[in-house]
Order: sequence, then C-alpha cells, then structure tokens
Amino acid sequence: MSKVTCDMAMSIDGYVAGFNQRFDAPFGDGVEGVLHRWMFEAAEENADELRRITEAGAYIMGRNMFTPGRGEWDPEWTGWWGAEPPYHGPVFVLTHFPRESVEKEGGTTFHFVTGGMGEAFERAKAAAGDRSISITGGAATVNQFLAAGLIDELRLHVAPVMLGQGERLFDGVGRTEWQVVEARHTGFVTHVTYARTPA
Amino acid sequence: MSKVTCDMAMSIDGYVAGFNQRFDAPFGDGVEGVLHRWMFEAAEENADELRRITEAGAYIMGRNMFTPGRGEWDPEWTGWWGAEPPYHGPVFVLTHFPRESVEKEGGTTFHFVTGGMGEAFERAKAAAGDRSISITGGAATVNQFLAAGLIDELRLHVAPVMLGQGERLFDGVGRTEWQVVEARHTGFVTHVTYARTPA
Repeated sequence: MSKVTCDMAMSIDGYVAGFNQRFDAPFGDGVEGVLHRWMFEAAEENADELRRITEAGAYIMGRNMFTPGRGEWDPEWTGWWGAEPPYHGPVFVLTHFPRESVEKEGGTTFHFVTGGMGEAFERAKAAAGDRSISITGGAATVNQFLAAGLIDELRLHVAPVMLGQGERLFDGVGRTEWQVVEARHTGFVTHVTYARTPA
Repeated sequence: MSKVTCDMAMSIDGYVAGFNQRFDAPFGDGVEGVLHRWMFEAAEENADELRRITEAGAYIMGRNMFTPGRGEWDPEWTGWWGAEPPYHGPVFVLTHFPRESVEKEGGTTFHFVTGGMGEAFERAKAAAGDRSISITGGAATVNQFLAAGLIDELRLHVAPVMLGQGERLFDGVGRTEWQVVEARHTGFVTHVTYARTPA
C-alpha cells in the first residue's frame, strides 16, 4: 500500500497562507516570500527536502490550491504552474464543479474529483501503484486528511516567522500521536518529519 | 542588558496545556505526560536543554502557572515544586492579589507582582543583573511578552503530538520575525531555538 505523505510550509504559529488568496497574491495577504523563501533563495541547501515534495506517484490537492477562482470554472485557467508543472504525474483536485481533465507537459494531468476525499484517495491509490501519494494542500484539505488519520508522514517546513492570522494547519484535526523521524534547520527554515503512530 | 529567554514545551499544533487546569491535573485535561515526557523519561539525552531552562538570573511567571487556585490566595499554597524549586533565584508571579513573598530552599523566592508585566519586567531586570531573564509561562503570559517584543530567544520543545484544543501559544501575538538558531530532535521532542529579528 502506498505511503501517504504531506509537505507543508508553515509559520511557527501554524499558518500556511494568509487571508484573501487571489490571483495577485496566491498565498494571501502578508505571506508572499515569507513561508517559501527557503525554496527559492536557498534551493541548494534544501535540495533533499525540495526533491521529496514532488517524488510521489499521485497527488491530491484542494481546489483553492489549484486556482484563485471560486464557483464555476474558468476554462482558461490550468493552474499556477505554467506549461510544465512540477508534479509529473496525476493530480486529483477536489472540487464541487465537474471539469474535464487537463493534461500538461512533462506528465502532469489534473483530474477534477467531485466525489470528495474518499473518491480522490481511491483514484490516487490506483494511480500511484507502489509509489507514495502526496496530499499537497491547502490547509483545509490537509486538515481533512489528518483528521481521517490518512497521512503517514508529515513533513513540516517551518519558516521563522509568526503570522498571527491566516489559514491554519491543524484546525479541527483533534488529537493524534506522531514520532519524530528527522529534524534539521537551514537558514530560512526548520524541517521536521513526523511519522504517524499507528492507532 | 539581560537577554530575555522563554522555554515552552508545546504540541505540534501549538498547545502548551489543556483546558481545566487544576490541582490533580496541573497541565489540564489530556496533557499529562505528553508534552513533558522528554524531561522525565529522557532527561539525559535532553540534558543541555533542561539545564538551560533554569539558568536565568530571574524568572517571570503567570499566576496560573504558580497555582491551580483562582481568586484570593490560599496561604498554604507555595507552588508546585516542593521544598526546593528548580529556579534558585527570584521568581516574579503576575497576579491581581497582593501577597507577601514566599522564600523556599535553595535560593528560590516567589514575589507577587500586582503592577502588571511592566513592573514584573523591571523588577526581574534589577534582580537578574547581567544574567538572563526567563519568561516561564503559561501561554497567556508568554503571549503577552511575545506581543510586546520582549523575548529575545524562544526555545520551543515540540512534543510529537497534536492536541486539538487547550491553551494555545501565539494567540494574539501578531506578526513577528525570527531567526533559527538551532534545531535538533531526540526521541520524544524536537528542540528549536529562535532569536528575535530586531524590528
């Protein structure tokens, strides 16, 4: 069975995005450049962690991570990631609005799932085979999978900032136990990997 | 000028105590043994971090950390720590209820401060001399000092558990920037030390 992983860049106080996510502020107000600085300004010293983010065989993502739009689809919008997204595999996007799959260069295909997390999870499992499944975000989607006990390995990338407000990881997750697998810091981030303790 | 430090044992989701703190549950419901296991079951491998918690020249503590009582003082109550508390120095307890200082063995004296965090801070500075001042907890007191920008070094000791509810660190602190100084993990905890970035 596939391992289910989740990489989240968050603030010390557990926020992964600001309020008012929109086209010109994909991570919302007050977050730009802060949580993800380690990815762009120090890619080399964080190379291992960066590589692992996109090594899964299938991905699950909330609709609000795929698009700044809400409601009915804008068919022109095919994601934030340009012609060749970094996933190189199937990405199952949770949405209430049906849409044809969108195929991009380099092997990434976005599939739009209207049957909820259960359907997305089953389809991701079938697509991933022996490889892992990555729950990519945002907070609401990850919290749903955490609450359901479906994430085996949680990799937090904690930026040294407190934001005070925004989309908070862990909300509604309840009590869960983990084991620390790994922790290290580089200039702009502390990486901590947790493995879920079997219930 | 004294460095101001703060050591907090917290859950992955930022809780430092459960609800309903009381005499037979000093850290409230659902927390016993979980956040502080590393201190007791793995004291040796966490010896450096443990030593630093009590190396300050003066301490500031919220009343709810000193006692499970609320309202008027019970004069019989002299803290959770037995005859010889681990502080070996002056501890300034924030309270609305005046009380004579309480002297314990080994150099710990609890002083009760009714003039708020400003008065406690001034008295701690005077008492600490060149040594550091430690803000010991609980969450409300630490959050007040964080919000005021008075903590220079924040040492988080993150236990591998999500609690889902309780007294939350960081509430009301707003946006603050830090630098990662150190991070390491042992079996039951991840230690991360942050230094405040000057505003």
